Amino acid sequence: MNPYTIFADIIAGAAPSSKVYEDDDVLAFMDIRPVTPGHVLVVPKVAAPSLADLDPALGGKLFQVGQRIAAALRESEVAADGVNFFLADGVTAGQEVFHVHLHVIPRTPGDGFGLRARPTSPARADLDYLAGSIRGALTR
Amino acid sequence: MNPYTIFADIIAGAAPSSKVYEDDDVLAFMDIRPVTPGHVLVVPKVAAPSLADLDPALGGKLFQVGQRIAAALRESEVAADGVNFFLADGVTAGQEVFHVHLHVIPRTPGDGFGLRARPTSPARADLDYLAGSIRGALTR
Repeated sequence: MNPYTIFADIIAGAAPSSKVYEDDDVLAFMDIRPVTPGHVLVVPKVAAPSLADLDPALGGKLFQVGQRIAAALRESEVAADGVNFFLADGVTAGQEVFHVHLHVIPRTPGDGFGLRARPTSPARADLDYLAGSIRGALTR
Repeated sequence: MNPYTIFADIIAGAAPSSKVYEDDDVLAFMDIRPVTPGHVLVVPKVAAPSLADLDPALGGKLFQVGQRIAAALRESEVAADGVNFFLADGVTAGQEVFHVHLHVIPRTPGDGFGLRARPTSPARADLDYLAGSIRGALTR
């Protein structure tokens, strides 16, 4: 896979971005295709195409920066009333840029953003079965 | 706000759950209303109604446990082909249980899950303006 993404250029300062936050490990900037006004992306500076490639220490930092931005979105002129975090890992999950990025999406009433989802109500035995299979994979 | 949630009973072992992972700080279990088969919730054991109440160290752990579960979902019988993380903070963001929880949602082609979103393409000046307002809120 070509490791280049536009985020590499943004991190290097070779492509424009509207920066919100920066430290040694993490950069946050405005999504140029916001699903609501104030939609921010939080990315590790060291490229990781997917969650499996991402140093867990950096993963933890993405979430922590997301928490700080969630608070700031409420206090800023975005005037968020709620916040969603969203992350897509893999083409099937809707990932388009192969450099891990956490979406921080400010919410206001009637903004039109949401999930397309039809929850089901499986039997406990079915949930237990899948849980056992996932536990097994975690310990392999 | 009443601090009680069903997650407190699950963590205490007083309500049933299909557990996937547990350590001193974090519990992960199957969502009883999965949006796709294998949908897992990752929660801190110490109750925090919202992101603003959540110790950032615990926030980081939620993401890290999410990373491990994302890998396990691919290796397990769930046979995920991709994974979404989702988190709702506040009623307007769709939060229903007021104990922070990270959704780890396995994805397979045609599973019907996705976002309801209409991205826009704001002018750079508008993005810069909001970025400046968020930066200001971050440093207050």
